[in-house]
Amino acid sequence: MTKSKLKMQTADEVESVFYEAFMHRDQEVMAALWNIGNVICVHPGSRLIVGYDAVIRSWNHILQNSQKAEIRYQVESKSVSDELAVHVVTEEILDENVVLAVVIATNVYQKFTQGWLMIEHHGSVVNLQEKAETLQ
Amino acid sequence: MTKSKLKMQTADEVESVFYEAFMHRDQEVMAALWNIGNVICVHPGSRLIVGYDAVIRSWNHILQNSQKAEIRYQVESKSVSDELAVHVVTEEILDENVVLAVVIATNVYQKFTQGWLMIEHHGSVVNLQEKAETLQ
Repeated sequence: MTKSKLKMQTADEVESVFYEAFMHRDQEVMAALWNIGNVICVHPGSRLIVGYDAVIRSWNHILQNSQKAEIRYQVESKSVSDELAVHVVTEEILDENVVLAVVIATNVYQKFTQGWLMIEHHGSVVNLQEKAETLQ
Repeated sequence: MTKSKLKMQTADEVESVFYEAFMHRDQEVMAALWNIGNVICVHPGSRLIVGYDAVIRSWNHILQNSQKAEIRYQVESKSVSDELAVHVVTEEILDENVVLAVVIATNVYQKFTQGWLMIEHHGSVVNLQEKAETLQ
């Protein structure tokens, strides 16, 4: 678990680990990929969650209370500097290959001495009626 | 209009201009503060909007079809590198001092040769029932 936390060399690597942890409900890995600091998380429809402990508590709640999630995700955009990376990702939440929900996430990563870590995840649900009009 | 576009020296300045333009339904200023490129916008509940023309079209639609908006906003978090800045902002949409909606926005700014410009705005509505529990 801590090996992932300490040795991620790119924002892309953190993102892969994040979605793996999300899909496999792995609370230890999820806790290991966030920076310990004033990180930010917004789950779809949720209030702002600030700080490592609150963010990890929110993820533990989600991961404990959900079935193993099937998520198909696609990186739509990356804005990168030496120390920050902002990725915009479309997430499709699936059940037996049927799309239950589409979420757009802004994921922010920061480079620290020990490597890259997640510092923000902001997810919002796409209104599926609008999606039907515009994304199909 | 173009003076704002070409001369913004900080991400904070872009953000102030953005909310002024939003509140005063100023389409010209709104168009002038976004980078012309693969910028990203997600309005609450909306699909992903990619590219300058589509993003500005979406803002023109909003600004043309809304009353002058009263918005109280508070910057909750800033993550900054030399060339990128990510701000998380709580926006309260008001009507005669009554809060109609609370939106959390992730705003991303980038430094270009001519100054800082907006490259992403991702807004999502807070479920007001949860807000009543947690933010009051």
